Amino acid sequence: MAYRETEKMRMRKAEARQRIVSCAYQCVAKSGFHSARVTTIAAMAGVATGTIYRHFESKEDLFAEIFRLATQREVDKVAEALSTQGDATVRLEAALRQFAERALRGPVMAWSLIAEPVDPKVEEERLAYRQAYAELFEKAISEGIEEGCIPEQDARQSSTCLVGAIAESLVGPLSPAQAASQAEPINDNYEPLVNSILRFCIQGLTGTRR
Amino acid sequence: MAYRETEKMRMRKAEARQRIVSCAYQCVAKSGFHSARVTTIAAMAGVATGTIYRHFESKEDLFAEIFRLATQREVDKVAEALSTQGDATVRLEAALRQFAERALRGPVMAWSLIAEPVDPKVEEERLAYRQAYAELFEKAISEGIEEGCIPEQDARQSSTCLVGAIAESLVGPLSPAQAASQAEPINDNYEPLVNSILRFCIQGLTGTRR
Repeated sequence: MAYRETEKMRMRKAEARQRIVSCAYQCVAKSGFHSARVTTIAAMAGVATGTIYRHFESKEDLFAEIFRLATQREVDKVAEALSTQGDATVRLEAALRQFAERALRGPVMAWSLIAEPVDPKVEEERLAYRQAYAELFEKAISEGIEEGCIPEQDARQSSTCLVGAIAESLVGPLSPAQAASQAEPINDNYEPLVNSILRFCIQGLTGTRR
Repeated sequence: MAYRETEKMRMRKAEARQRIVSCAYQCVAKSGFHSARVTTIAAMAGVATGTIYRHFESKEDLFAEIFRLATQREVDKVAEALSTQGDATVRLEAALRQFAERALRGPVMAWSLIAEPVDPKVEEERLAYRQAYAELFEKAISEGIEEGCIPEQDARQSSTCLVGAIAESLVGPLSPAQAASQAEPINDNYEPLVNSILRFCIQGLTGTRR
């Protein structure tokens, strides 16, 4: 009997943790890390504020977990797009489009993941995130060079240019997507913006007019 | 006599201010904004720490001034390169090369200006700085479209891609220039890195293999 109760408590604890994570995720997606308050997250999750600190050592630890979850989702989507049919250029274009469209549909989350000033603990996760992207792109560019659809170049360097061009265009302070209301996703007519970024990136890689 | 003394005092004050600014500039160039301490700056300038606060309301105000000075210098260099002879593509390439080589010669200052997490007051200056760059590039791209050496495109959007690609490559956490010791400029053999970034950028704009 004692064992069963412990098991039940463990399950309850896991459920509460899951609820906290899910509510924190929603808060960050709505207004960024800086505006997400532990008291709000606790109220949404239906737990006492103190309960959050039984699951996470600090707010920063909770946010680092949100960051990991959110970025893993984004990195998985890009990896998925890169593993579809077609030559490397086609696959890279699909992946960049995936990245761009998701960022434009969730501009606040994209900004939080890429550009929002964050705590050093979250910043560490961000570096890992950028590296994961750059490595995926680097691999695809190297494949393209082998296949012959992308000219010889420093694949690592070009992947860094890709990440920079697309991040600045979509979530940098100069981006039209950020100039629009941060709370509202851009639903209408982001095709020209996405096409213009993709053309720059693919031309940059291939040196062939699109 | 009273007037002459006031004038003398004014000159002394201006000299002290100039010395403070110059020493703060050196500190930031050496180790970034975060590591630059007011006490160190005061000692270097030969003034009491309190004197700094007679010239600047706060450390943030002093740093915002350093930021403005340093970025104006960089923006002027890019504007100068963009106003040389040749078609828009040649001028853009010269400006991007200027930007890249300066960043590689002073990697800490470049990182402080572009990527170091900074106080909101300095961040405001940073936005103005990025806009100044983007506007210079946008103007040159528009000229290139008129001249016919750059194909029709959204000049503003492409200028944002340029700024992103080059900033990420040179001072982002993924940059090989930052992976090297931050205290030491990369003196040897940065040509391949610069050439690889420039090729990506110019190909991105023109769609013509370099």
